[in-house]
Amino acid sequence: MSTMVFCCVNNAARTTGRRFGMSRLKGRARVVEPPSSFPAATRFAGGTGARFMSHGAAGRTAFGRSRSGALALGGAAAAVAAAAAGLLANADHIQHAEMATEASPAVEMKESGGDISERCRNFMCPPVTGIDVLRERSGEMRARMEMLIMETQAEFCRALAEVDGGAFKVDRWEREEGGGGITCVMQDGQVFEKAGVNVSVVSGHLTEEAAKQMRSRGKVLKGKDGKLPFCAMGVSSVIHPKNPHIPTVHFNYRYFEVEEEDGSKQWWFGGGTDLTPVYIDEDDAFIFHSTLKEACDKHHPQYYPDFKKWCDRYFYVRHRGETRGIGGIFFDDLDSPSQEEAFQFVKSCARTVVPCYLPIIHKHLKDSFTEEEKDWQQVRRGRYVEFNLVYDRGVKFGLATPGSRIESILMSLPLTARWEYMHEPTKGSREAEMLEVLRSPKEWV
Amino acid sequence: MSTMVFCCVNNAARTTGRRFGMSRLKGRARVVEPPSSFPAATRFAGGTGARFMSHGAAGRTAFGRSRSGALALGGAAAAVAAAAAGLLANADHIQHAEMATEASPAVEMKESGGDISERCRNFMCPPVTGIDVLRERSGEMRARMEMLIMETQAEFCRALAEVDGGAFKVDRWEREEGGGGITCVMQDGQVFEKAGVNVSVVSGHLTEEAAKQMRSRGKVLKGKDGKLPFCAMGVSSVIHPKNPHIPTVHFNYRYFEVEEEDGSKQWWFGGGTDLTPVYIDEDDAFIFHSTLKEACDKHHPQYYPDFKKWCDRYFYVRHRGETRGIGGIFFDDLDSPSQEEAFQFVKSCARTVVPCYLPIIHKHLKDSFTEEEKDWQQVRRGRYVEFNLVYDRGVKFGLATPGSRIESILMSLPLTARWEYMHEPTKGSREAEMLEVLRSPKEWV
Repeated sequence: MSTMVFCCVNNAARTTGRRFGMSRLKGRARVVEPPSSFPAATRFAGGTGARFMSHGAAGRTAFGRSRSGALALGGAAAAVAAAAAGLLANADHIQHAEMATEASPAVEMKESGGDISERCRNFMCPPVTGIDVLRERSGEMRARMEMLIMETQAEFCRALAEVDGGAFKVDRWEREEGGGGITCVMQDGQVFEKAGVNVSVVSGHLTEEAAKQMRSRGKVLKGKDGKLPFCAMGVSSVIHPKNPHIPTVHFNYRYFEVEEEDGSKQWWFGGGTDLTPVYIDEDDAFIFHSTLKEACDKHHPQYYPDFKKWCDRYFYVRHRGETRGIGGIFFDDLDSPSQEEAFQFVKSCARTVVPCYLPIIHKHLKDSFTEEEKDWQQVRRGRYVEFNLVYDRGVKFGLATPGSRIESILMSLPLTARWEYMHEPTKGSREAEMLEVLRSPKEWV
Repeated sequence: MSTMVFCCVNNAARTTGRRFGMSRLKGRARVVEPPSSFPAATRFAGGTGARFMSHGAAGRTAFGRSRSGALALGGAAAAVAAAAAGLLANADHIQHAEMATEASPAVEMKESGGDISERCRNFMCPPVTGIDVLRERSGEMRARMEMLIMETQAEFCRALAEVDGGAFKVDRWEREEGGGGITCVMQDGQVFEKAGVNVSVVSGHLTEEAAKQMRSRGKVLKGKDGKLPFCAMGVSSVIHPKNPHIPTVHFNYRYFEVEEEDGSKQWWFGGGTDLTPVYIDEDDAFIFHSTLKEACDKHHPQYYPDFKKWCDRYFYVRHRGETRGIGGIFFDDLDSPSQEEAFQFVKSCARTVVPCYLPIIHKHLKDSFTEEEKDWQQVRRGRYVEFNLVYDRGVKFGLATPGSRIESILMSLPLTARWEYMHEPTKGSREAEMLEVLRSPKEWV
């Protein structure tokens, strides 16, 4: 989860809550029961592998944490922070952004491919925002983005469940301050050690601390009494396969809006997809990067080269002098050339997740592996944990923000990891070859 | 490693280097070959389990990293940072400190229990500071503390090697800027999954950043041209046993000196010992805490209650709402009632490490365990990693400081760890009982 980000639709969570008969709890966030009539729950359970958690299991778990007085749960406050982190990354861009939340009816029709309710039937569970509200606001960017992230989650989960044969545990949670999320996790499956796909749709106010951090980077955002209404949403995923010849993948696509004192709105997109193999396979690297390049090139010839470099810079484990993996693309604060074009680019990226990754899984599905190869995978998993806990902006801000849903933030960690003192691969080995690439990022396309 | 800290003796490393025939390298730090005549290397190898690494293995590994241009290695810059962290924790104390580096000859004689050379023969390898220099300065606190941390390392390693039957890998490394360290690690032994005991003895100048951080906490330390000469030293250790019924232990004892522009010196001690069991055993908790209390009570009746509370506060995994373990003692910035008395207290604590922990190991050495118990241990190990990478001041500063010896900093991580999504023990289980204690720290004595 490079940056767990999310959506707004201010009173939508409440509306959704009533429609699906949710009750309010004292805890900061809770797992909610799906409506028994919601078709996706049934469809996924029987067919492609989703298992929607009832109150009995997931609900009790969440209760346990809330009652304990733990600071965990709430999930989406992480959004404030993660989004703030995004803002910090390239604050100059923001001042040029223009608010343009209405799409032309033609764009909307083309995008939807059907009625909102019909499209929602394919989701892993009901969206965070009420379906009626999404229909009413179907021309607004925040509704269009929520539909896109829900679709991306469902499409990716379906593809993974089909490969694995296992089921996703689906936790739908809401946040007292506004919004909520849907966390889908498959753990210890046939193919996947841990596969997590998270959607968050969050609204609220930027805390003074977050606002201050922004100011310290030179960007002054004026809020009423020092507070700025914001909405943020995103889909993020990390997949750790069991077989060391199938790489780990991560992606995250997000949208952010913030309202200043004078009522003007700033918006931007961020995201990326990157691959973390245990062993170098040049063909895999080529498939992955060229699929991303193709998606980027449709929108701007500089997107792939610029965002590839950004990715290598961002996913860098500084204390090891290594990148986390072989990269991909990463971008933040994208607010040009127009809101519509930026959204179309993000949509292309999101639609590229499955074609980027699934061919690589299928290619290595039957690969045999040795105990030594599994050990090397576990050592690399350790480095993955180091990056996520020490450097990842979304995780860091999420953990530091009271009310975050910790389990959704840390679903990105592998099921198992290993730290060997002074581990150094033998010269000339395939492990040494991998390390060499991580120490000097390559061009793959 | 709560705070990896270390020693000074400004030109001592160079002296040591010449005596033992070390060469200087371009890398920030390197592993050095022991003198073949040094008796401890032989003694430990044959007898109680130490295995001193020759250039062939450890040296090559360190070279590999240096040549790669990695930011790692150097090890002791972490000291600057960790020590700075110590300074930050309770900066008010420092201004009351008085410099008193000379002990009475009587104290020195009583403490030594023999000639410096004789005492050094029991160490895991030659001390960072040359033996001649230590003898010349035997009345000064920094020499006395270096002898104490070297003795503590040797005593603890010997006790662990005897229980395990395995050997410690001993890496002696030096730091270009001054000083160095000795890292002893036993990995995948009979009893211990990973056992690390590290000594660092470091000198140099506080960076502007470290100085700035100190100022931000209200304490102005005036240095020449913004730089403050410092020396820091310490011993730190983390032991992760294989059997889930044997708890993990951690301790760290450290000493710090910093010189201001006008030549006046500030000094303080820090340290602590704490226990992280996988399952609660009230008798173990009592043995551990009462042994610590006894050591504390000899020096001040408030030490145990105050430092026990400080420990619970410090080892707190905030995002989980849990302490890391069942605590022990933790203190920092100790500069009263006098340098001699503070040192005697630290010495009592250091001498208490073996009697605190070894009886607990022996008690559970033959305990059988189930796969489920091993899994729960692995989940707890994951929490240990979370604390160390997200909150531990020494680790955080060490990782952020170029030139640190990363392998010494991260030796505290377990060999293996596990992250299960939404893991929650069954109500009434022994796992739930453990969690309950971590959520509400108890009094054990």
